[in-house]
Amino acid sequence: MRLLEEKITAEGKVLPGNILKVDGFLNHRIDVPFVMQLGKEIARRFANCGVSKILTIEASGIAVATAAAYYLDVPLVFAKKHKSGNISDSVYSASAHSFTHGNDYTAVVSKEHLDEKDVVLIVDDFLALGSALECLMDITAQAGAQVVGCASIIEKGYQGGGDKIRAKGIRVESLAIIESMESGTIVFRPDEGEQA
Amino acid sequence: MRLLEEKITAEGKVLPGNILKVDGFLNHRIDVPFVMQLGKEIARRFANCGVSKILTIEASGIAVATAAAYYLDVPLVFAKKHKSGNISDSVYSASAHSFTHGNDYTAVVSKEHLDEKDVVLIVDDFLALGSALECLMDITAQAGAQVVGCASIIEKGYQGGGDKIRAKGIRVESLAIIESMESGTIVFRPDEGEQA
Repeated sequence: MRLLEEKITAEGKVLPGNILKVDGFLNHRIDVPFVMQLGKEIARRFANCGVSKILTIEASGIAVATAAAYYLDVPLVFAKKHKSGNISDSVYSASAHSFTHGNDYTAVVSKEHLDEKDVVLIVDDFLALGSALECLMDITAQAGAQVVGCASIIEKGYQGGGDKIRAKGIRVESLAIIESMESGTIVFRPDEGEQA
Repeated sequence: MRLLEEKITAEGKVLPGNILKVDGFLNHRIDVPFVMQLGKEIARRFANCGVSKILTIEASGIAVATAAAYYLDVPLVFAKKHKSGNISDSVYSASAHSFTHGNDYTAVVSKEHLDEKDVVLIVDDFLALGSALECLMDITAQAGAQVVGCASIIEKGYQGGGDKIRAKGIRVESLAIIESMESGTIVFRPDEGEQA
């Protein structure tokens, strides 16, 4: 999505350790009118797929998932991050590793809020190693629900998580895919999903 | 807000210990079209107040704060919950107590994203003892910014947090105020903020 690539180039900061800081518009301060446009683009790409529910994980994916849910006119469920190993029977749960925070966590979703009739679009802000998306797909499978695909705002293509999921035959749409950030220069993969 | 009171009465569950469970539409599964209406009502009540930024705290306040920010056409900043005592110089921080989780935490906001030019509306989903709102007001004061008021979706009036903040001369608008939940019957305080 050209608008997003321009925003990342203008406002993103490349920090040592290949970290891209976009907390000025995406994951601390949220440029809400802009994020609504991102949600609208996700909704456009997954229109007519029969999506009944969006699934994301707290916390920074919630804003863009809210926007996508608004334009698809469906409810949103966000998985909660659980620290303890003491998980109740009334939830689906799966573990994931956070690349950003360098820790493991367990994501939980109440069984009340996801079931086999659901057609799920998984949404998150960042896609690096793909651990969060795989965790949410695991939870969706436990519910017996169908996944129509995954949408992320910024995919770090060079970390391989998105392509690993695509190789399993799952549709993954990222609104911007970064191929490299060498010497602070951000290079994007051509966007095949954008409308001409 | 009559629509919200009706929704709470129809879908909320009163659990032992005076706990109101509304995770079917507000804080786990989010009824996004409905939450957008809540955000619109917050925006209506704080229109023409010069709001430049909405401040909330992760995670369950983010959806409704996104909705309010959309209708006020301003950015949203969400404070992050920090577990360790090791807080960087580059953030404002303040502690709070979670009534829901029974623990203390430190909320942090990057100094980059809040400053003395800001006119802040604080938004959260629940208002019980008022600890989260006071924590966010503390952070706003540290930034030298002005608070125009606080908005919550559901205030537990009988816990006194909202009235304690009002007594300090701060405007607090809650879209539904619960006066009591004795024997599972939810009684609301008359809503003075709703448009006739």
